[in-house]
Amino acid sequence: MLRGSNLLSLGNYNQAVILDLIRRKPGTSRADLQRRSGLASQTISNIARRLIDAEMIRESEPGDAVRGRPSIPLVVNGGGGFAVGVHIDPAHLTILLLDIAGEVRHRLHLRTPQATNPGEMTALIAVSIGRLVREAGIDRDRLLGVGIAVPGPLDVRTGVVLDPPQLPKWRDVRLRADLHDATGLPVLLDKDVTASATAELRKSADSDFLFLYLGSGVGASVVTQGQVLRGASNNIGEIGDILVDPTAEDLHWSGRRGGLAAACVPEALVIQAVQAGLMVLPDLTDYLATDDAFTTLTELAAGGDAKASFILDRAARRVAVGIGVLVNFLDVPRVVLGGPTWNRLSAAFLPVLEDAVRRELVVSREAFSVVASTVGELIAAQGAADLVIDHFLAPHASVLVID
Amino acid sequence: MLRGSNLLSLGNYNQAVILDLIRRKPGTSRADLQRRSGLASQTISNIARRLIDAEMIRESEPGDAVRGRPSIPLVVNGGGGFAVGVHIDPAHLTILLLDIAGEVRHRLHLRTPQATNPGEMTALIAVSIGRLVREAGIDRDRLLGVGIAVPGPLDVRTGVVLDPPQLPKWRDVRLRADLHDATGLPVLLDKDVTASATAELRKSADSDFLFLYLGSGVGASVVTQGQVLRGASNNIGEIGDILVDPTAEDLHWSGRRGGLAAACVPEALVIQAVQAGLMVLPDLTDYLATDDAFTTLTELAAGGDAKASFILDRAARRVAVGIGVLVNFLDVPRVVLGGPTWNRLSAAFLPVLEDAVRRELVVSREAFSVVASTVGELIAAQGAADLVIDHFLAPHASVLVID
Repeated sequence: MLRGSNLLSLGNYNQAVILDLIRRKPGTSRADLQRRSGLASQTISNIARRLIDAEMIRESEPGDAVRGRPSIPLVVNGGGGFAVGVHIDPAHLTILLLDIAGEVRHRLHLRTPQATNPGEMTALIAVSIGRLVREAGIDRDRLLGVGIAVPGPLDVRTGVVLDPPQLPKWRDVRLRADLHDATGLPVLLDKDVTASATAELRKSADSDFLFLYLGSGVGASVVTQGQVLRGASNNIGEIGDILVDPTAEDLHWSGRRGGLAAACVPEALVIQAVQAGLMVLPDLTDYLATDDAFTTLTELAAGGDAKASFILDRAARRVAVGIGVLVNFLDVPRVVLGGPTWNRLSAAFLPVLEDAVRRELVVSREAFSVVASTVGELIAAQGAADLVIDHFLAPHASVLVID
Repeated sequence: MLRGSNLLSLGNYNQAVILDLIRRKPGTSRADLQRRSGLASQTISNIARRLIDAEMIRESEPGDAVRGRPSIPLVVNGGGGFAVGVHIDPAHLTILLLDIAGEVRHRLHLRTPQATNPGEMTALIAVSIGRLVREAGIDRDRLLGVGIAVPGPLDVRTGVVLDPPQLPKWRDVRLRADLHDATGLPVLLDKDVTASATAELRKSADSDFLFLYLGSGVGASVVTQGQVLRGASNNIGEIGDILVDPTAEDLHWSGRRGGLAAACVPEALVIQAVQAGLMVLPDLTDYLATDDAFTTLTELAAGGDAKASFILDRAARRVAVGIGVLVNFLDVPRVVLGGPTWNRLSAAFLPVLEDAVRRELVVSREAFSVVASTVGELIAAQGAADLVIDHFLAPHASVLVID
């Protein structure tokens, strides 16, 4: 059994405040910390000494001092602690190791097993975490815990996956408790869109944006004034039913006709490709076959196929209508896109989206932009790990971890 | 010229904190305040004495003490200060006087003059404020300022109304500066939906809800964890273009076919009534005639007319689809409805909305509810006055007032 987090018992609140200030502004000096925290100089020195001894921070090379003695920059010591981030998408299972300086140290990417039942999935994740830690060669005692990002709806407080439409065999699965039992590690469960927005917020300097998550499903989250909104039941972001094209073709599909999910999720795009004669219908209950067919569609478009290009261009314009709804409602200056299918869609989407969204906006905005995530396809897993690190290292720990 | 606010220079931050605590929890005792503020007992006593001397708070009747000396409840003294709230709707002009204890002391309700130009409107508002203050018989020196709620889009920071589709003659109107020049009072300008959500938050105990504003236009705002979201450019809430019925009839109208505005604003409902043969088409550029025709439609429905009832029932079901979009996206547990047309729509809407919205929800919620505002039709004007009181009395004053 792995053990976690005890080494990092931070002693007191001030220590957590100082570590958080260094995390948020790497290279800060003791004098900076004193100014920003309001703590006494001697207190800062003592805390810095303890954090250096615990290998949580280290001194970096000083720059040239303008006058007098150069101040020594303090940075988080990545090797001081780690979190595992897991992302369960119906087609993709991502497991990565993030250090407390925000670097991905190692990662595993598996196709999500077919017709998964929750017990098998828990066992697979537990085994994979062991493998990840072994391969990365880190000290297990420095593992803070595991964050899992899953499709909603879920009960974050009890750590239960309720009944995600994308995981039909999953009903009221106590994933957090089960994975805690299987690994002995603290475990946190959160929604894929919330984890993704957290990762984007950590990586970018941006404090106000809408995050559009594109995976086997479509979702959104909102960062406002540097805070990730999560919704009253932590289930923010169900946007798949938003009507984006009243004239949309009938996909003979479970999702809402003319809705945002029907416009852009792999299953719906594959049906459109089949209707256009581009491919034969795969078994749509097989998420891997659907995902492969979706890849084929995007490759056809990249290769210049007119029908495939038409489908993805139309998808981008429909997504723009949906984004317009959200931007008009919440008045956000920037939209960031990411998630498991984003890399395959970006070539078709990025040239179209910004202008198409602008045409939907009621309030004209000079500064409005639509951009790709700076984090990449692993974003939900990385965000799940970020949430664990925040839990243990931020001054106000959440109550959402089992440990 | 009226003078404002100088009498209320609060001396220091602690004094503002204490006054805010009493405003938020009327009847709180000095011992409570000490516990909640962390200030020393003697500091609390001194501040309470100064606030009583300034007539901003007063001592209320003590209840029975469980043991020992009964504690004396402190409450805000309504007569200590006032704010004027103005709401400019294309059909209705509301001007009211709110005291710092949250009571409406006096109000004027005018039909908004036809084909208003901004200069005439400013003059009318200035004259009306003078009349309001005279009729209420309050001391002008206790007037904090004027808050104006208007349809968006607007530039809250500069106090400029940009180009509201509902006020076609208004383009880049410096309403805040003009009204300040005309009255000599501090003036704050904000969006109708933001003001409404602020009033609802102040009046109800609720800290998480979506506010749906129904007036000549339709808008929404969000309160999350006791904070009113305003959007990056303070223009939150443009929801009129959300598609709610792909099969909707063509209204030959400026709004989006099948959109939320086409489903529920007076102009669109009057066109539907005309199409159903219920009335002859009024001059739709005349907001008062349109508003009167809308009133006729709602009276017909209340009187049992089947066609009128059908139109309003259909409107409720379409509005439910729009609410569903917003609730699914932001995961809010409660929806509150209000605004200038709400009283005329509530009889048809309330019996239908909650169940109809529930059918739209992706995440099932036991506690979900759709309710009428506790504030009533004057909500936007009252919220505009609340924003002024908050500006002057809350510890963190906004920078959005000209004074």
